[in-house]
Amino acid sequence: MIDYFLKDNWKIIEKGFDPRMNRASESVFSIGNGRMGQRANFEESYTGDSLQGSYLAGVYFPDKTRVGWWKNGYPEYFAKVINSVNWIGIRIVINGKELDINDCKIYDFYRELDMKSGLLRRECTMKLKSGEKVKIKSTRFCSMHRKDIGAVQYRIEALNFSGEISLIPYLDFDVINEDSNYEEKFWQETDKDSNSEFPYVEAKTKKLDFRVRATMHYEISKMGERLQLSVLPSERKKFIAQQSNISVKEGEVVQINKYAAIVSNFNYPDEDFKALSEDLLKKAKSAGFEKLMEEHVSVWHGMWDKHDIQIDGDVAAQQGIRFNIFHLHQTYTGEDPRLNIGPKGFTGEKYGGSTYWDTEAYCLPFYLCSADPEVARNLVKYRYNHLQKAIENAEKLGFSKGAALYPMVTMNGEECHNEWEITFEEIHRNTAIAYAIFDYVRYTDDVEYLPKYGLEVLIAISRFWSQRITFSEHKKQYVMLGVTGPNEYENNINNNWYTNYGALWCFRYTQEIIDLVKKDFPEHYKDICKKTKFTEQEIERWQDIQSNMYMPFDESKNVFLQQEGFLDKEMIPTSELPKEQRPINQHWSWDRILRSVYIKQADTLQGFYFFEHEFTKEELERHFDFYEPYTVHESSLSPCVHVIQAATINRPQKAYELYLRTSRLDLDDYNNEVAEGLHITSMAGTWMSVVKGFGGMRVEDGKLIFNPLLPDHWDSCKFNVFFRSANIEIYFDKQKVVVKNLKGNAVSISVYGESTEVAEKQQLEVDYLKHR
Amino acid sequence: MIDYFLKDNWKIIEKGFDPRMNRASESVFSIGNGRMGQRANFEESYTGDSLQGSYLAGVYFPDKTRVGWWKNGYPEYFAKVINSVNWIGIRIVINGKELDINDCKIYDFYRELDMKSGLLRRECTMKLKSGEKVKIKSTRFCSMHRKDIGAVQYRIEALNFSGEISLIPYLDFDVINEDSNYEEKFWQETDKDSNSEFPYVEAKTKKLDFRVRATMHYEISKMGERLQLSVLPSERKKFIAQQSNISVKEGEVVQINKYAAIVSNFNYPDEDFKALSEDLLKKAKSAGFEKLMEEHVSVWHGMWDKHDIQIDGDVAAQQGIRFNIFHLHQTYTGEDPRLNIGPKGFTGEKYGGSTYWDTEAYCLPFYLCSADPEVARNLVKYRYNHLQKAIENAEKLGFSKGAALYPMVTMNGEECHNEWEITFEEIHRNTAIAYAIFDYVRYTDDVEYLPKYGLEVLIAISRFWSQRITFSEHKKQYVMLGVTGPNEYENNINNNWYTNYGALWCFRYTQEIIDLVKKDFPEHYKDICKKTKFTEQEIERWQDIQSNMYMPFDESKNVFLQQEGFLDKEMIPTSELPKEQRPINQHWSWDRILRSVYIKQADTLQGFYFFEHEFTKEELERHFDFYEPYTVHESSLSPCVHVIQAATINRPQKAYELYLRTSRLDLDDYNNEVAEGLHITSMAGTWMSVVKGFGGMRVEDGKLIFNPLLPDHWDSCKFNVFFRSANIEIYFDKQKVVVKNLKGNAVSISVYGESTEVAEKQQLEVDYLKHR
Repeated sequence: MIDYFLKDNWKIIEKGFDPRMNRASESVFSIGNGRMGQRANFEESYTGDSLQGSYLAGVYFPDKTRVGWWKNGYPEYFAKVINSVNWIGIRIVINGKELDINDCKIYDFYRELDMKSGLLRRECTMKLKSGEKVKIKSTRFCSMHRKDIGAVQYRIEALNFSGEISLIPYLDFDVINEDSNYEEKFWQETDKDSNSEFPYVEAKTKKLDFRVRATMHYEISKMGERLQLSVLPSERKKFIAQQSNISVKEGEVVQINKYAAIVSNFNYPDEDFKALSEDLLKKAKSAGFEKLMEEHVSVWHGMWDKHDIQIDGDVAAQQGIRFNIFHLHQTYTGEDPRLNIGPKGFTGEKYGGSTYWDTEAYCLPFYLCSADPEVARNLVKYRYNHLQKAIENAEKLGFSKGAALYPMVTMNGEECHNEWEITFEEIHRNTAIAYAIFDYVRYTDDVEYLPKYGLEVLIAISRFWSQRITFSEHKKQYVMLGVTGPNEYENNINNNWYTNYGALWCFRYTQEIIDLVKKDFPEHYKDICKKTKFTEQEIERWQDIQSNMYMPFDESKNVFLQQEGFLDKEMIPTSELPKEQRPINQHWSWDRILRSVYIKQADTLQGFYFFEHEFTKEELERHFDFYEPYTVHESSLSPCVHVIQAATINRPQKAYELYLRTSRLDLDDYNNEVAEGLHITSMAGTWMSVVKGFGGMRVEDGKLIFNPLLPDHWDSCKFNVFFRSANIEIYFDKQKVVVKNLKGNAVSISVYGESTEVAEKQQLEVDYLKHR
Repeated sequence: MIDYFLKDNWKIIEKGFDPRMNRASESVFSIGNGRMGQRANFEESYTGDSLQGSYLAGVYFPDKTRVGWWKNGYPEYFAKVINSVNWIGIRIVINGKELDINDCKIYDFYRELDMKSGLLRRECTMKLKSGEKVKIKSTRFCSMHRKDIGAVQYRIEALNFSGEISLIPYLDFDVINEDSNYEEKFWQETDKDSNSEFPYVEAKTKKLDFRVRATMHYEISKMGERLQLSVLPSERKKFIAQQSNISVKEGEVVQINKYAAIVSNFNYPDEDFKALSEDLLKKAKSAGFEKLMEEHVSVWHGMWDKHDIQIDGDVAAQQGIRFNIFHLHQTYTGEDPRLNIGPKGFTGEKYGGSTYWDTEAYCLPFYLCSADPEVARNLVKYRYNHLQKAIENAEKLGFSKGAALYPMVTMNGEECHNEWEITFEEIHRNTAIAYAIFDYVRYTDDVEYLPKYGLEVLIAISRFWSQRITFSEHKKQYVMLGVTGPNEYENNINNNWYTNYGALWCFRYTQEIIDLVKKDFPEHYKDICKKTKFTEQEIERWQDIQSNMYMPFDESKNVFLQQEGFLDKEMIPTSELPKEQRPINQHWSWDRILRSVYIKQADTLQGFYFFEHEFTKEELERHFDFYEPYTVHESSLSPCVHVIQAATINRPQKAYELYLRTSRLDLDDYNNEVAEGLHITSMAGTWMSVVKGFGGMRVEDGKLIFNPLLPDHWDSCKFNVFFRSANIEIYFDKQKVVVKNLKGNAVSISVYGESTEVAEKQQLEVDYLKHR
């Protein structure tokens, strides 16, 4: 854990430059607009340690799978959103000497991510070895308004010399992915021109033929005056640059505004690239940097108006939640149904930008509450679109008759993961995908989704479970052998309670939806039966399994067991683990972790989170008290679930502790890995920990329920949710809870059990103290 | 399973050329001499499918580890004995056209491995597309007498044309390893000369700096007459060749004798390479091909005189066992204590030529009985030499205080394996290493090995087990969590009976040896305690574990369970598995295999094999009858153990079936993988299946015990063993068993329980029928 960035309600601030923190800062200060994203690499040359990262949504490479020993069923490739063109680069040469931040003396380094406006700003003074001192100031953004445009404004002041400053803006596709096999590079140049008003490089990926064209334009001025300079173009493989030399006197300021248009055949036909890019740049040029920035900022302001969470009295908590909301919105905007949410978004290479069960389990609620209804529907339908591939995936593993196993990791529906204990065994992801349908329909009441898309997915998932479960003659019960639960610190275990419970729930829910569709959409039902060859005899086995499933339980402790044999471990709580051994995944060998009792992320408790409505609060409390003390929260997805549960069982202090952990996970680098990128999907979990945790929001039978719990450290908390076309604002402090219907249809609201219909512009106010 | 090679008592014969079988034949017809080995690649050009393989013992490359997802504790590199110089190559050009076997019409293809003489011979007639027909005949060997020399005799007859035949012998280091990452090549040229009487290429490996020099010399004759020809040298990177053009008339025969000297700095200082190589070749030249061959053949004849197993009345069985003995002897001769036995010997790339627990568990008995005492001692001491690295390996995984975990796979004592479920969990290998000490001392009575080397290893192994076992408060017993047994179709299981039993046995045996050394070698004992910081308090915990270890057992079936929960699987015997799904490891996904009951190789039964003397025959029978029906024998190491046990419990038919499977595993390609190379280590298991299985040989308290059982298909069986400096011959047929002491001290012998001392030149004869 670190305490490095300064606390501020709206900004992330770094004062002073520490090269050891550079990769961490590059992650934290990343910017993006849903279509492209950029780590906070420097514009100038920097020969120090850095992870260069510029990513384009949907532009990936199917890299060769790396395995030690091949297992039947492994996928042929691992998809990764690859590092793309460096469009921010501006080399600076002063009196013939390269400005390399790694080789300067640096004073007054200041960097801020202005989350309110979506801007990355940096200022500092640098002294070259030869003595020249310059003060620089840069501002950049990926335009939220013009999604293919990135812009940089870079100023440089000659503090103690007169002479020549050369500015060399460039575009570079000759980039590496650090995780590529044997330093393989993925881009091949197809075209370029360095000697033009709109110089460009066009490149394509080695496989799949993704084509991307980056074009730039820039203006240079001195002391506010536009300069017309002769330009020295230069190029090398996959690279173009233009150099301008400017004579300066001591105290003079030179400024360059650089605009980049980046277009790809993921979004446009390649024959339009040239015209489109030049048009984009001409418009950008004519608008100018300030105007472009204004437009961009105004999109952000609009977003905050709708989706902010305000926490008064606790800057760390406030900054944390805004940091999470900010990154979620710049990662995924939900406009493109082909896209999904990679665990690191545009902030690093890890996890390859692919889709995990994170989307269904952690992200969906955020988009349900904070985006157009279409966005959440797109997210859920993404898996419907991949159903056929999920069926093929199951076939590959030996399942049949339309059983589907959704991939653990995917870019286009095909499995991309290659660790047998995860790929083949972390099959509870199927439940999360079914659950997302349930969650979506519960929240939106979009019942028509079920006959159109949902039921097919549910049948295929139930079929999978039906085949995956076997009957133990020994136990005279059904069992599920060889799985990995959400707690990936246990592999190839038998009867993981969460997986077993989820499978049974899938059977129940599928049956419920079969009944519903059969009754309310009989034509659809017939079509689905025909299409999927579904017969109701299949349900008989599902019911038999439900009546005879083995669920590991310990009488003496009165808890369900994470898996069979769980109690054979050394039951030493995490509080007794030496601090220097945390996180254990960085200090212990894998076998030691596996043998230990420690839980990476909610596993049994994940079941109590998803299926909370099927248990009593006492049951939840008992299981929370049993499992949380063994939980090391080394998955970013862990603390948020526990915040919600701690709040539910009225443990404000525990909830608050874990809330800081989830909301400031990356800012304070709890797991010592922020250098690799941010935990984007868990950020949605953080949002949930406020809304569902401290806000106590639930939806039941079309009613919006709140049971707010204000941490001691907070004066008040306020947030909005969109619910069935109404915009609902919730405010709570130590005196009162106020739920307002700002706009939209009347909504049935319950606060601490007091229910009422709240019409547009009406509100429900309830005493806080009476209930807490 | 295939039936491709012809059956013969002394030869492996292939008639007709089937390119689809080429890789398989290349493996089966491999030749070697313990220092170098060569797959049966063709001398001429062959553009068809082939696995080029020429290997030098001890010359390996530490290749970059490939893993999907890194786990703490993984090794940095994977060692592999790499494909080395192609020294057999002779390009043939006929009237200007390359002779490419893949592009010819082939008649009367005949290939034989003459195991009695250690020669690979080939004959065939080939017709080029342009019509020229040639008959070729080649003979080659890696000299058993001059270990750095390989020799080829190649004859070519112009059947239907007069014209020009060019012979182009070459040396080529520009070779690939098929399993290299990203087609990386491992050799770098350091020197070469193509224009000399002794042309050569010298190269070094990219890492570790193994240097190898290959030098050639050759003689060409026509119709028996030596030709003096002008030579056209040529070279390219890592390659030299010399071309001679010979005019021939129809019916004439041209012959080339090619000798290669291959020396490496694994055996010689590099400054001696030149003189040494030329000296070797001058001597070879002056001896001539026939003489070199004679010397070589005579070494093989001497070997067979001592180590043959004769089976009368069953050619398949006879051929099988000789094939096994032949390959064992050409893989490992035991002269060099730095070497060990790779699972594929010199016949393929798989397993990288590294050392596995195969050596201790399957190979040691063969070398104990069939080689100089020094050879077996070298094999056992190999692990003593690696003790410090095994301690470091355990430290890396979190163990301490001198606990040792021997590597799963190693070249120099460091772990090279990188699958967590094997690397970290298949820890029963430690028991095999302790067992080898026990086995060695039991057989040789070399008690002095214990204070000198054995005890240190035993203490370190027992320390490991002591730390690896944990106490379950739930069971109130000690447990061993998270292991993989010999049956690798189960991973990360708890309380594998074999591993648990082996650990307890290690404690017992270590204690026994501590007592022995303390009493008989008190000075050594003091030194060992000092060196290892051993205190007798450690024994207290070992004893506590022994009294309170959980051993999975099922009352109703009255068997120890392979692991906890074993009976929850679908208990369908292998006899009910559809044939087209076998071997399951080629037809089922890995998770399906893991969930299934099927046993890859003896696991519980491996315990009954090692520790047979600690169980009754009834217990063995009960466990055999329970486990064998679920065993798929998909490890080459599986059938041999079962042969021995089937023979012990008097099941000649079962024993015979499994014997064919083990002895003809590669010849009949039971597991559909011989193309990758032969199963060298399991060949020692095959030898055991005759000696310990059908011969029923055991050693107990210094007595050599035999309980022969003759399969119905055999008329008789005869073999020799060296036991404590005596050469003992055992013969049995359907009437009698005769055990002769051919040479050496008197030996205490027991046949079917009849015991006597048999002095030199004496014999013990016992009636067979009375006992069977």
